[in-house]
Formats: sequence, C-alpha cells, structure tokens
Amino acid sequence: MKNVLVLGAGMVGGVMAADLARDRGLRVTVVDRSTQALARAARNAKRLATPGLRGSASRRGGAPPLRLVEDDASSAAVVKRLAADADLVIGALPSRFGFQTLRTLIDAGKSCVDISFMPEDFIELDRAAKKRGVTIVPDCGVAPGMSNMLAGWGVSQLSKPTRLRIMVGGLPRERHWPFEYKAAFSPHDVIEEYTRPSRIVRNGRVEVREALSEPELVNLPGAGTVEAFLTDGLRSLVRTLRVPNMEEKTLRYPGHIELMRVMRSIGLFSEESMDLHGVRLRPRDLVAALMFPKWTYEPGEADLTVMRVEVEGMRHGVPTRLVWDLFDVLDSESGFTSMARTTGFPATAMARLILSGKFREKGVIAPERAALGKGVLTAILRDLAARGVRYEARVEQMGPASRAGATTAKRAGATTAKRAGAKAPRNARSRPTRA
Amino acid sequence: MKNVLVLGAGMVGGVMAADLARDRGLRVTVVDRSTQALARAARNAKRLATPGLRGSASRRGGAPPLRLVEDDASSAAVVKRLAADADLVIGALPSRFGFQTLRTLIDAGKSCVDISFMPEDFIELDRAAKKRGVTIVPDCGVAPGMSNMLAGWGVSQLSKPTRLRIMVGGLPRERHWPFEYKAAFSPHDVIEEYTRPSRIVRNGRVEVREALSEPELVNLPGAGTVEAFLTDGLRSLVRTLRVPNMEEKTLRYPGHIELMRVMRSIGLFSEESMDLHGVRLRPRDLVAALMFPKWTYEPGEADLTVMRVEVEGMRHGVPTRLVWDLFDVLDSESGFTSMARTTGFPATAMARLILSGKFREKGVIAPERAALGKGVLTAILRDLAARGVRYEARVEQMGPASRAGATTAKRAGATTAKRAGAKAPRNARSRPTRA
Repeated sequence: MKNVLVLGAGMVGGVMAADLARDRGLRVTVVDRSTQALARAARNAKRLATPGLRGSASRRGGAPPLRLVEDDASSAAVVKRLAADADLVIGALPSRFGFQTLRTLIDAGKSCVDISFMPEDFIELDRAAKKRGVTIVPDCGVAPGMSNMLAGWGVSQLSKPTRLRIMVGGLPRERHWPFEYKAAFSPHDVIEEYTRPSRIVRNGRVEVREALSEPELVNLPGAGTVEAFLTDGLRSLVRTLRVPNMEEKTLRYPGHIELMRVMRSIGLFSEESMDLHGVRLRPRDLVAALMFPKWTYEPGEADLTVMRVEVEGMRHGVPTRLVWDLFDVLDSESGFTSMARTTGFPATAMARLILSGKFREKGVIAPERAALGKGVLTAILRDLAARGVRYEARVEQMGPASRAGATTAKRAGATTAKRAGAKAPRNARSRPTRA
Repeated sequence: MKNVLVLGAGMVGGVMAADLARDRGLRVTVVDRSTQALARAARNAKRLATPGLRGSASRRGGAPPLRLVEDDASSAAVVKRLAADADLVIGALPSRFGFQTLRTLIDAGKSCVDISFMPEDFIELDRAAKKRGVTIVPDCGVAPGMSNMLAGWGVSQLSKPTRLRIMVGGLPRERHWPFEYKAAFSPHDVIEEYTRPSRIVRNGRVEVREALSEPELVNLPGAGTVEAFLTDGLRSLVRTLRVPNMEEKTLRYPGHIELMRVMRSIGLFSEESMDLHGVRLRPRDLVAALMFPKWTYEPGEADLTVMRVEVEGMRHGVPTRLVWDLFDVLDSESGFTSMARTTGFPATAMARLILSGKFREKGVIAPERAALGKGVLTAILRDLAARGVRYEARVEQMGPASRAGATTAKRAGATTAKRAGAKAPRNARSRPTRA
C-alpha cells in the first residue's frame, strides 16, 4: 500500500484525489481548508466507485478510502507534517503557492506532480531536487502539461524540426451572447491573458507580441470554427526545445477576441488607478464586478476543452507534420468538468508512473522531457483514454512545395494525411484552415 | 431693413447667424456668453462674404454687419431686451432652455424658428402663440426638421398612406476602429439614444421598443452600407400624421450598434450608483471619462450627414413610395460641419419665408404642418440646394404584389423607380436592401 497526499481539493484537486482513490494499492489523503471542497471530493470518490462506471481496469467495489483533512495546504508546516508518510504528493494549489510548496517538498525529500501553474521558474529547484533524489514534474496539466509532452515527443521524432504550434481553449458548450465564454478558472487570470504580452519564437529568436494579437479562425474537430490568438503559454518550451518557430495560442468562439480588444482599447482593463469626479478607482475592478458574474459556470453546466498540438519537420527524409487533436466535454456520469478531467488526469497518470517505479528520473523535470522516458507518453495517453479523454493523432506528409512559414491552408492543400499505422485519414476533414 | 436675433452662437447658431447676415435687407444680432463662440461666428460671416464662394444669390460684397452681443442667452430678461426690436428670433440654445425661451418670446410677441430639440411638448404653447399673433416653428433642423417636412408633404400627396420611415445619422467621414463613430453633439445624449426606449407606430398603435433594437443594414447613396436601429425620433409626427406604420431609425456604420449593445448588456451604461470596494460610482461616468474623448471630432475633421425619408401609400390609384435621400459632407470652403449645415439651413430658410411674409400662419406650427404651406417646401429645398445641401427625390411605383409590412427588399424587387418629372431613375441603384 502506498500513500498519496493531494494538496488542495479545488475543482481539479478534488477530481485527482477521487481518481487516485480508485486505484488498488493506493491510500489517498486530500487536504483543504474548505469543508465543502472536501465533501465534494468525497462525493466524487463515491460516485467513481459506482459499478459499471467508465474508468480504469483497477476499479474496486465499495467506497474508496479517501482520507479528508481540513487544514491549510498552503502552510509549509502543514505540508511537511502531512507529507511525512507520503510516497508521492500531488500539488493542486493556486499558482501563487506552487513554487514555495515545491521547495518545502524537496526539503522533505518528497516527489511531486504539480499543476499549480506557478509564475516562477521551477528549473531553479532542479539542483536541490537532484540532491535530495526526488522526482518533481511541474506544469503537468493539459496546457501546460499534455501540450508540452506531445510537443517534446513530437520534436524527438523529427529531424530539423521547424515549427511548433499549440492551440488550446476551455469553453462553455452552450454559447451565449455576447461573450460566448465562461471562465473555468479565475476570470482575473483570463483578463491577464488578454493584457500580458506573449513570448513566441520566430526564426530562432524569442519575440514578444501584444496580447490578443495575430487572431485567426481555425476549424477543430468537435468545436467547429474557433478563433486563436497569441498567449504567453510556451513557458519552459522556449528553453527546452530547439525549434525555430514556436507559438501558443488560446481559443475562443469567433467574436470574443474582438470584444476583448475593444474593451481593452477603451481602457476598461486598465489597472491604473484613475480619478472619477473625486473618487479613485481602477477600471478593471468595475469590469470585474459587472462582467465576471456573467462568466461563471452554472452548476452542472457543460464545459469543453479543445486543443491541437502540431509539430513540423523532416521524418524519413520527408517534410512531415505530426498533429494531435483533443476534444473533451464535461462528463455527465461523473459530473467532472472537462477542465478538471483534461487537467487532472495527466497528473494522476504521471503519478502512477512514478509510484510504480516506471519513471525514475530525479530532479525537476519539465513535462516535455518527462515524455521522452520509455513508455511514458503511451502510458499517459492510455490512462487518459480509459477515462474518456482521447487525443487523436495523425501524421501528415507535406508536399515538396511546402516550407516553414507558408500558411497552413497552403500546406494542407499539398498534404497527404495518414494515421499512424497507415490507417485511413479519419481526421482529414478537420485540417486547419485560415479565414 | 429687418432685424433678426440669433440666440446662441454654438456649432449651429454661429453658422445660422453668418448665413442670414449675407442676406440684403437683414440686420443680424447674435448673442452668446462665450467670446470664442462669437468670434467664430464673426469669422464664419467674414468667410461667407468672400467673393466667389458658393451661396445664395443675395450675396453682397464686404463683411456683413453681424452684431455680436456677449450675454447670457438663456436668461429671459436678456432675451426680452435683445428681442425688443427683432422682427424674428432664431433659437439655437441647448435643449433644456428651448421651451422657456419660446414662452418668453411668445409673451414678447416675437416670432421664432427654433432648433433646440426641447424635451417638452411645444404644442402646449400653441394657444398663447395664436393669441399673440406670432409664428413659432420649433424642431426646424434636419431631424427633427426636414424629416418632418418631407414626411408631412409626402403624406399629403398620397391617399391611404401606409408607412413612414425616417433614417438619419451624423457620422465621421473617416472610420476608425473600434467605434467608427464620433459625436457631433453631446455624447451623453448619444448614450441616451442607446438606452431610452423608442416610440414607434405599428398597425395604427403607438408601441414602445427597446433602444438599439430592430437593427438592419441599409445601402444609402454616399454613405454605402450603414446600420439602422430604432430611436425615439418621431416626436410630433406620432400625433400629427395619420399613418399606421411609422418609425425613426438612427444610422451608424455596421458593427457600432453591436458594440453598444454589448457595453449596455455588461451594465457599463448604467446610471445606477453602485458600490465598488467601498467607493460609490455610476458606471456610465467611467465610460464617459474613458470613451468620450475618443468620440470627439478633431478640428477640421470631416463629418457627414445621411438621411432617407420614405412615405408609402396610394397615388393616382397606384401603390407608390416617395423617397428623399440626403448625403452631405463638411464644406471645406466655409469650414462648416455637415451637422451645422444640414441643421442650420432649414431654419434660416424658414426664417426667410416668415420675414418675407410668404409664411403667415400663426401659432406653434410643427414643421410637418409648416411644409404644407404653399411653396414652403420648394423654397426651403431651393435655399438648401443653393448652399450645397441637396435632397434627391424620387417616386417609386410599387408592384401590385406589394403591401405594407412586406420587406423593403421584396417591394424593391417589384418596383419601377422613376424620378419626379419622369426622368431616368438616377438613384435606382441605391434602393434599400436588407441584410
């Protein structure tokens, strides 16, 4: 029997705890300050134990032994105490606690898979982690997370990689005027995405672009036509991959970006304090008060996650594009949101690999590097598929006329698509086009 | 020699004073509190005296004798004193002073042409005006004003009138993202147009519609494709005309209305005071502070005015549509904005008719009724044309399949257009279409 400690029983943490609690041979503890969050995690675990529910082969009968601890998971003392008998820790705290918690865990000699999306550079902790002989995999959600793994593995399959493109979005399934958007995470962080410049790589150089820039329409399976715009999501990939052209784009339904650009241009997203008839205020605070309530999911409201990862380069001497598509929706059986499923299950899959000894690398390992371990990506994709989160992969041979930097539409026109394993091109209809 | 007093030397008042000062036989006084406004009116008059400049036949050489009085034109005492020797008064004050000024002038036994757009019902002053034997023509600008005259005259030419439609907008010639709009009058009043419900007449009943509702794309000569939405502009027409279907719509470049609907839906136009982290504010005040500076015309920046008035009914036993189109742009010779030209010249033309004794009706006369006087509309259209403000008129015979309530596009398809006087249908290409 091995012990797993989950820090945080939030939207994703609670689902990860319930997911792991189903595994034979795991004893799972989840810690959170919120009684309600803990109760929800317990309900999640109970629901997953229902016979006949889709899931991993390791399902067992009866309620899984999920241990609930009501305490402050952001406190180093609490983490140290609760992690003492843990074989692995899962970090699911708000981003501002991510880095300090990793440091505490490394000090305590505990391995960890983390999804906190910390702003700090986690590679700074690599030496300490190696010294303590622990395995830390940060940014291990969907994006960052699966996007990094697929990018890293894809690039490893190509010689002379020329281009990496990640497009990802969490969206409401039902679209409502005018925003056709709801925020599955902090809406303040969403506005950050709309204002913070994004780092991309062009012709081998890191460049900075304005937020909401380079919008384009893209057709993606399941989601239909969506609009992609540059966001600052490359993170560790800027440093770890040697690809001359890399970008991450966020997806929204068409029209949303334009509205956000207008609101930004008026100054409504400004965080500068201004004087209004003798009163001081920040415009963004007013927008938050008026708009964010409209961006909140109703209980049970279906969300979806859509992602495409594309890597281009030479393969067996032929210009080739590797493409992965994800389309996932709230699971009505378990009630798990798509955001929780697509973000949480990569981390629990990675946790299983570490706990079972199949992944033994020490240090702080970015997911794109972790994915290069033997059998790692295959095992993670299998775990995800067993939970209904399916990545559709395909290989496209690009025509000889293609070159990096030409438009996708042009390339797609000169492309013969085939599935890995020489099957029929099931996703050929969903090739990207531009408007 | 007759004396004319112009109350207010604002954007329009200053242009009206300069325009009248060119007439032989008129001595014009203009009163305003602002030295700058008076100086601008004097410059206008001087510029109009330039030989060779397009204008009326009554132009004379040398600077016209425009008398400037720096005083408070909104004060009843000032108005009484200055109007004492006036044969006619032109009212060009802000709307909140319009009604009280008319009352003062009626008491003083003075006739008046007014463009102040007062919120009060001016018909209440009709009896008093009749008693004093004075002529008052209020709402005598472009819309209200020319729109009323063309509507009134048009309806008088038809038996069984079925439909009146007025579409009007003041727009910047150069369009800039994101609003493609600037306000030639108070931007606060513009937001009022976007929030105040509008009265229309449908099937003989007065109905109220939400602001910004029933948007449609319309092609208008000069302006291209613009978007029309319901506004509360019928005013006296609701009562004076017996037409079962009447509406007034305001025109913007396509897309503007959608942005305004979005901002309104967020709550940004709200005038309700709200609490924001302990500070009280009205969202509309913030929007005004951030957005209105972007809605302000630069000095010399070209504005344009576009209007269409359509009346439908039977004429000589045939279903007929009478259509007038206006397209006017800032006059680079005189520097007069289109808003000032199209609003000011109908009032000065009406003033000439009263001063010359050609219009003798007493009481408060809505422009749609004034237009029924013999030769009145012809004289006004001639005066406007002499100043470059041209209304293109045409008569369309509607096919027998047409009926009131069918879409314009359908009707236009079954229409043979001909110009009054059986000329070729010069504007046939500019028939309204719907998107």
